[in-house]
Amino acid sequence: MSSFGTFFKVTTYGESHCKSVGCIVDGVPPGMDLTEADIQTQLTRRRPGQSALTTPRNERDAVQIQSGTEFGKTLGTPIAMIVNNKDQRPNDYTETDVYPRPSHADYTYLTKYGIKASSGGGRSSARETIGRVAAGAIAEKYLTLVNNVEIVAFVSSVGSIAMNRDPRSEKFQDILENITREQVDASGPIRCPDAEIAPSMVSEVEKHRDDHDSIGGVVTCVIRNMPVSLGEPAFDKLEALLAHAMLSIPATKGFEIGSGFMGTTMCGSEHNDAFFVDGDSGRFRTKTNFSGGIQGGISNGENVYFSVGFKPPATISKEQSTVSYEGKEGVLAARGRHDPNVVPRAVPIVEAMAALVIADAHLIQESRKAAAAIVTSKGF
Amino acid sequence: MSSFGTFFKVTTYGESHCKSVGCIVDGVPPGMDLTEADIQTQLTRRRPGQSALTTPRNERDAVQIQSGTEFGKTLGTPIAMIVNNKDQRPNDYTETDVYPRPSHADYTYLTKYGIKASSGGGRSSARETIGRVAAGAIAEKYLTLVNNVEIVAFVSSVGSIAMNRDPRSEKFQDILENITREQVDASGPIRCPDAEIAPSMVSEVEKHRDDHDSIGGVVTCVIRNMPVSLGEPAFDKLEALLAHAMLSIPATKGFEIGSGFMGTTMCGSEHNDAFFVDGDSGRFRTKTNFSGGIQGGISNGENVYFSVGFKPPATISKEQSTVSYEGKEGVLAARGRHDPNVVPRAVPIVEAMAALVIADAHLIQESRKAAAAIVTSKGF
Amino acid sequence: MSSFGTFFKVTTYGESHCKSVGCIVDGVPPGMDLTEADIQTQLTRRRPGQSALTTPRNERDAVQIQSGTEFGKTLGTPIAMIVNNKDQRPNDYTETDVYPRPSHADYTYLTKYGIKASSGGGRSSARETIGRVAAGAIAEKYLTLVNNVEIVAFVSSVGSIAMNRDPRSEKFQDILENITREQVDASGPIRCPDAEIAPSMVSEVEKHRDDHDSIGGVVTCVIRNMPVSLGEPAFDKLEALLAHAMLSIPATKGFEIGSGFMGTTMCGSEHNDAFFVDGDSGRFRTKTNFSGGIQGGISNGENVYFSVGFKPPATISKEQSTVSYEGKEGVLAARGRHDPNVVPRAVPIVEAMAALVIADAHLIQESRKAAAAIVTSKGF
Amino acid sequence: MSSFGTFFKVTTYGESHCKSVGCIVDGVPPGMDLTEADIQTQLTRRRPGQSALTTPRNERDAVQIQSGTEFGKTLGTPIAMIVNNKDQRPNDYTETDVYPRPSHADYTYLTKYGIKASSGGGRSSARETIGRVAAGAIAEKYLTLVNNVEIVAFVSSVGSIAMNRDPRSEKFQDILENITREQVDASGPIRCPDAEIAPSMVSEVEKHRDDHDSIGGVVTCVIRNMPVSLGEPAFDKLEALLAHAMLSIPATKGFEIGSGFMGTTMCGSEHNDAFFVDGDSGRFRTKTNFSGGIQGGISNGENVYFSVGFKPPATISKEQSTVSYEGKEGVLAARGRHDPNVVPRAVPIVEAMAALVIADAHLIQESRKAAAAIVTSKGF
Repeated sequence: MSSFGTFFKVTTYGESHCKSVGCIVDGVPPGMDLTEADIQTQLTRRRPGQSALTTPRNERDAVQIQSGTEFGKTLGTPIAMIVNNKDQRPNDYTETDVYPRPSHADYTYLTKYGIKASSGGGRSSARETIGRVAAGAIAEKYLTLVNNVEIVAFVSSVGSIAMNRDPRSEKFQDILENITREQVDASGPIRCPDAEIAPSMVSEVEKHRDDHDSIGGVVTCVIRNMPVSLGEPAFDKLEALLAHAMLSIPATKGFEIGSGFMGTTMCGSEHNDAFFVDGDSGRFRTKTNFSGGIQGGISNGENVYFSVGFKPPATISKEQSTVSYEGKEGVLAARGRHDPNVVPRAVPIVEAMAALVIADAHLIQESRKAAAAIVTSKGF
Repeated sequence: MSSFGTFFKVTTYGESHCKSVGCIVDGVPPGMDLTEADIQTQLTRRRPGQSALTTPRNERDAVQIQSGTEFGKTLGTPIAMIVNNKDQRPNDYTETDVYPRPSHADYTYLTKYGIKASSGGGRSSARETIGRVAAGAIAEKYLTLVNNVEIVAFVSSVGSIAMNRDPRSEKFQDILENITREQVDASGPIRCPDAEIAPSMVSEVEKHRDDHDSIGGVVTCVIRNMPVSLGEPAFDKLEALLAHAMLSIPATKGFEIGSGFMGTTMCGSEHNDAFFVDGDSGRFRTKTNFSGGIQGGISNGENVYFSVGFKPPATISKEQSTVSYEGKEGVLAARGRHDPNVVPRAVPIVEAMAALVIADAHLIQESRKAAAAIVTSKGF
Repeated sequence: MSSFGTFFKVTTYGESHCKSVGCIVDGVPPGMDLTEADIQTQLTRRRPGQSALTTPRNERDAVQIQSGTEFGKTLGTPIAMIVNNKDQRPNDYTETDVYPRPSHADYTYLTKYGIKASSGGGRSSARETIGRVAAGAIAEKYLTLVNNVEIVAFVSSVGSIAMNRDPRSEKFQDILENITREQVDASGPIRCPDAEIAPSMVSEVEKHRDDHDSIGGVVTCVIRNMPVSLGEPAFDKLEALLAHAMLSIPATKGFEIGSGFMGTTMCGSEHNDAFFVDGDSGRFRTKTNFSGGIQGGISNGENVYFSVGFKPPATISKEQSTVSYEGKEGVLAARGRHDPNVVPRAVPIVEAMAALVIADAHLIQESRKAAAAIVTSKGF
Repeated sequence: MSSFGTFFKVTTYGESHCKSVGCIVDGVPPGMDLTEADIQTQLTRRRPGQSALTTPRNERDAVQIQSGTEFGKTLGTPIAMIVNNKDQRPNDYTETDVYPRPSHADYTYLTKYGIKASSGGGRSSARETIGRVAAGAIAEKYLTLVNNVEIVAFVSSVGSIAMNRDPRSEKFQDILENITREQVDASGPIRCPDAEIAPSMVSEVEKHRDDHDSIGGVVTCVIRNMPVSLGEPAFDKLEALLAHAMLSIPATKGFEIGSGFMGTTMCGSEHNDAFFVDGDSGRFRTKTNFSGGIQGGISNGENVYFSVGFKPPATISKEQSTVSYEGKEGVLAARGRHDPNVVPRAVPIVEAMAALVIADAHLIQESRKAAAAIVTSKGF
């Protein structure tokens, strides 16, 4: 429902126009440095109004920690976080009082609950992701301390303008190996680090924005300095948890890990990642990484990388022939201005969900490691 | 870990060479007709040795219900099911005692647990999926009674030989609308209902089999007569649960729902599924179904359809340069015969996991519906 | 950890001196009338400073709903509730900076988390129960609509001053059958409806208060108009869930359901509750109710009643010989005034936890009922 | 439902007369020595027919491990265990086909599920506890390796024949400190280590047995060499988990931890457990242990001790006036011989459930400890 994770567990709350949105994060390790500044950075990257490519609503989204820390340290107790909503009851959405927006959650929420929030997206609004991003920022802080884990997401396609994501592409693997968040943000409003195509992506968004339409895209994410041994067979394989996490983000339509759908066209002798022993660390590594850092559902220490497909946003101001809640045919054109494309803003959300998955998997494996050390009288 | 589901919950057990494999299914509705015959059909579709395209091991995989039914009716109590393993300690895998198989779970299980099963895939073996298929068969039985729900999966690509899965393709939508399990099985050993390409798929598998290699593929699945209102925002959106379920199947690399990655290239005015009122039922329906039957994480009653990408099997008898467990470079060629391609056998596994997700989501929504009827003094 | 329940699930947060305390309640049925007034009543019954028998701190504890309702109706989405803390960093507890309070959580929190809140009880403070009481009020509202369920708790003993709780006592059964919350509150500050002993209880508390000491007691609770069939064998028997809920309340030492420990002294032919058919309703009832309304872990429709033992509060201002955090022997006398007895204030907390258990069990059984009706083509 | 635990999780299955009963235990630490012999000991202590005091049915209850171990070591994967049922469809219970047994689960199962097993107790049968005892034996094995944890339960009362359980009794505390399982079993069929009253207990059971009646009793359990810091505030306090575990055992009516209900009559200055520093270990200990080894829901390293009340068994062969399933008044006298008292056989079940709680809590705290060590760069 509204909770995610086993040990490092977030529960979010809030609709688009209620008093506040936020979350409770349970299971945060005690004694960790943590202040609101650690959380605000990603919230600020998530908020709308950052560029002409996104919705012009300007929401400051300042987070307030309610509990679970003292003198800048975590207590190990639940951390509640709140971001106040500014506009609690807007008048901006009147057409959508009459028409359920096609491909939006308006209709299904009504069938599911028999009632729906009167304005905006209600619980299905992207504002729900504020709680996720806040929780993810805490998870990231932990992972940085664990192993200097780096999680970087970026836009890899907008409409048909796409980076070459073939896992055999050297350029793609080079980006996965080296890209930083700073570079992603410096690459411009579209957050695509491939300078050759980023301008075309911007044009693509602008074209659809000016056409009162919207366009989809893909976010790719890499996790470097991955701890080994994370993920729980059989049902909670690491890629299964990541897929669950990513497909729970609004507007997502697909997920692929490592070689992904491209890998289905490869033969085993090419796709298998041969082992070698790293001279420096003595650690087992693989020459290629079509597995995307996960084998048998368990991380092997190589980079975890995956891509998430986002559909074009459903709310557009272009006219659409559809039917009203009363079942009468008519034409809907949403008032106001809406995101013509969500992928740049989805970047910190994808990073947050990835951090939640990895932090939880790490805490679970730490328990097993400790227990195995006890029963075998040795660590491993 | 080894459990999946909230209300309709399966817990599986078993490794490739232990005494038996199986599962406990908790939360099965009481009073339902159920015998072993209901379960055996899908287990038989899943077992190896069905054709020259799969592993020649012939495992009968006869299920035995241990508990939870009496006189052919479910009691509402946990249903335990067992399938005995035939070969408990084979000698067939000696090279793999020396070398962790590249892209297999051998290495990661060892790092995770500090110990691994001495032969075969252990817990990572596809035999683990027997418990899932058995549980899924019970879920399917329930869903048939709920709404005559039909779940049909089929092979949509092998290597580069692919059906046109563009959601705008009429042929593809026609297959989704009409394909039956009988047709899938009648289509030949590759289980692809597109007669134009099925023979090429067979050749593709044979080519890699004869080359001691393997090849990947894609399974597509459709769920028809879907109940409306299933799926739980925010984290347990129906597509998120399906993605979790599918990526927990061994060898999977990708998942897409509805328009999937193709949908990321579409603009909103094309992708939005306009509503209309069905003349016969008076029910809200959509003219197109790029959403794949789910909007805002909740089913809208249209067909749910999705595709799952499978990598080429990791165990091949072709020589691979890699390193031994001791870290010495060497060459591994797995003895024996192995599945050159898993997708035909994955078909009933995908169906089973889909059934588990839908049955669980249905039980959850039934609770809400009942409660809402109580508090509002009306049904909905 | 900080979550309780499966379908009707509360997650609480907050320490004694952080910014606010509160909770998120997930799974509340949609379309139900709900405003802050529905919640405030029980919070007000819980707060300190209500009489000379409790701590003189006067906390208003006004609840603010953040989400999940609109125009006084629940949306089916998570309901977040906040109560601001007044004193965020008091100076009142200086001795307790030096000494871990005996039988308090000071020492164990420090060993568990390696850090503890600097003042007051931190997370172990009774302020954590505010979130429970707020959530319980929503659960109660639902249960009232379900079956006019009545949950009434009262003080049945203070120190050695005890009501006769022998399940064979007619007076005791009469109280269970008829007592109302109004009568409990009208009975005076000790909330004991037995007018013969309530004054002695008050004296008992006053004696210990004046002696800078504290005293324990017992709260008994009855649930009337119980729906049948609630509780999930094997591990989630209704009495097991109630026991879990009650022993999670701070300062509890014991739980007994129905005949309780007294029942262990009875023989089967006396203890068995013979069935009869109620002439009016045609419903199966039992002549006696030593079972406490639960048989085989499942409610049978008779009154559920149970008692919860509370130890004397650990924080007393009487001098105690103990050791400091540094391990030095010394004498601790807590400053300020503290609750000499918690049972009157525990009354609404016990009611809240009972309501949470019953509401959750009801939602679970509604799902089964609906499913069984589907598979058997009949209700039951 | 049929699962218990978070990390160390058991799922049981089986009715009194199905093919087999058993369980799957997930989360067992890998690399631990484990064979069937480790499990059989407690199963044998649990089985009926051990003395003239219990049911004369002689069930051998030999456990068979199905999975999760190899060469006598755990693999970290789920361990399935099976005990075959001997009598699958007995004819011994014909009267109970006509009459729901008073205070038994017959009636409530029927209302809950709309169907019930045709003979015996079905799922409510004590045979369900076989899976618990098998799982508990594994948990105990782990706890022995953790800290040489000792869990010993014994009978402390039968009917009105009771040991003095006043926590201030030196004799009682001495038993808690020193009693061994060997002594408990050597004490005779009633498993009460107090030689002064054990013979009277035996007579008490014999009297009720000969009278075709039954009698209740109390089992007390102590856990020595307890690891510190186990238990999770707020809802999963260690005593709450123990209470949940114990009240999930069939026929239980009460639970008390440490001073229990007796503690409610004490004043704080007596009840508080003053700290001292243990000269040998330098460890904080308490002079008294009214807390029962748990403070603030977290273990402090002192002995955890608690008592569990069991009602007289409901199935008696004495005549009882009641009504049939059809609602007709009549007289039921159960055929066959039944346990006149369950407490001696409950001893290993109480131990098993205690072991499951402690093992799970330990695994959870190990995760936190590891995480805290990472974030603070020190252990604690």
